[in-house]
Amino acid sequence: MRLGPAGWCRWAGGAALGLALALALEALARAAGGWWRRRPVREVLFFPSRVTCTEALLAEPGPGSCPCPCALPHGDSALGRLLRRLLAARRSLELCVFAFSSPQLARAVHLLHRRGVRVRVVTDADYMAVNGSQIGRLRLAGIQVRHDQESGYMHHKFAIVDQKVLITGSLNWTTQAIQSNRENVLIVEDAEYVKPFLAEFERIWEEYNPANYTFFPEGKKQK
Amino acid sequence: MRLGPAGWCRWAGGAALGLALALALEALARAAGGWWRRRPVREVLFFPSRVTCTEALLAEPGPGSCPCPCALPHGDSALGRLLRRLLAARRSLELCVFAFSSPQLARAVHLLHRRGVRVRVVTDADYMAVNGSQIGRLRLAGIQVRHDQESGYMHHKFAIVDQKVLITGSLNWTTQAIQSNRENVLIVEDAEYVKPFLAEFERIWEEYNPANYTFFPEGKKQK
Repeated sequence: MRLGPAGWCRWAGGAALGLALALALEALARAAGGWWRRRPVREVLFFPSRVTCTEALLAEPGPGSCPCPCALPHGDSALGRLLRRLLAARRSLELCVFAFSSPQLARAVHLLHRRGVRVRVVTDADYMAVNGSQIGRLRLAGIQVRHDQESGYMHHKFAIVDQKVLITGSLNWTTQAIQSNRENVLIVEDAEYVKPFLAEFERIWEEYNPANYTFFPEGKKQK
Repeated sequence: MRLGPAGWCRWAGGAALGLALALALEALARAAGGWWRRRPVREVLFFPSRVTCTEALLAEPGPGSCPCPCALPHGDSALGRLLRRLLAARRSLELCVFAFSSPQLARAVHLLHRRGVRVRVVTDADYMAVNGSQIGRLRLAGIQVRHDQESGYMHHKFAIVDQKVLITGSLNWTTQAIQSNRENVLIVEDAEYVKPFLAEFERIWEEYNPANYTFFPEGKKQK
């Protein structure tokens, strides 16, 4: 079948309409995709943190708990942002931290535990025994804690919120680190990072299971 | 103008062809985009690292430098991967590390310096004086080093390769950390992380400039 000028014209019109339709669909898909797949959280916090009042974040609802009348500034700070990320947990918090003595961060963990979030803590055996460590209080409150038995340090400093948001960096959870040191914390939602850290947590959690403790050298047990 | 059945048929054929053309173009653009905009590097290393021979990475070209005949295993390891990422530097290395005593990591930094890469090191004043610190040797080789003057620690442990790849985590650059501790290192190319760390490096580099040292309290200088 041969096309006359009018036939070609109709054919070209149809092709143009098809093209326009496809482009419109593509634009729509992109817009929907942008809305549907929001950008992953990617944030960096640097310390030392400005010292601010964190009562508004940490106080449990009740009369007179907010606003706090203390003399500290009440604005934004790196510690405030870190607390907000942690307190966003609804289901689980995996915490793997070498040194934990910060009262504010401990309050956040206690608060999550009381809210019914499943909290699991891994820490270093040497550091957990020092003065000011919060680990004993976490245990007293019924939070599950496990520690290493190795000669090396359990030197990680990371937390995973709801198995989705990784909080990791150089910052130990101590007041010295928060208020005096140069430190960094990354907040990360990309699965390429979150998944390996989750796997590392589960590996360590299982390895530090008290049921697996070996108090005697292998040879003696087998005698 | 009204279309007969043949006209409709041609119009529909044209529309279908236009749609197919648009879809093909889209697929081509996607494929080209995937090739053009490669996925950013996102890698996680966990330590302790398997102890392996790193001579093949660190030896400068010369007779007998490779393969190394030593008894250590010659396979992959977390330290090997970290060294590879560092040795990929062609133009610059910014290094901001609390404790630096690892001989292998020091060799990598010396190697980059000799290759003409611009190396700048920031470290902690207290730790740089301990036995085994590599900081003195870096300075002797002509590498620029600056350190804090503060009461808090310069506790960062990050490096930036060619202003594009961030290497950061809990790992101090010591043999103890590499071989005995539980540690993590993230390799990151996303600008959301690299830019703030570059800015933090420049801020610290300028703040620790010896020209800005204050050896006497402000009041005394102004007397």
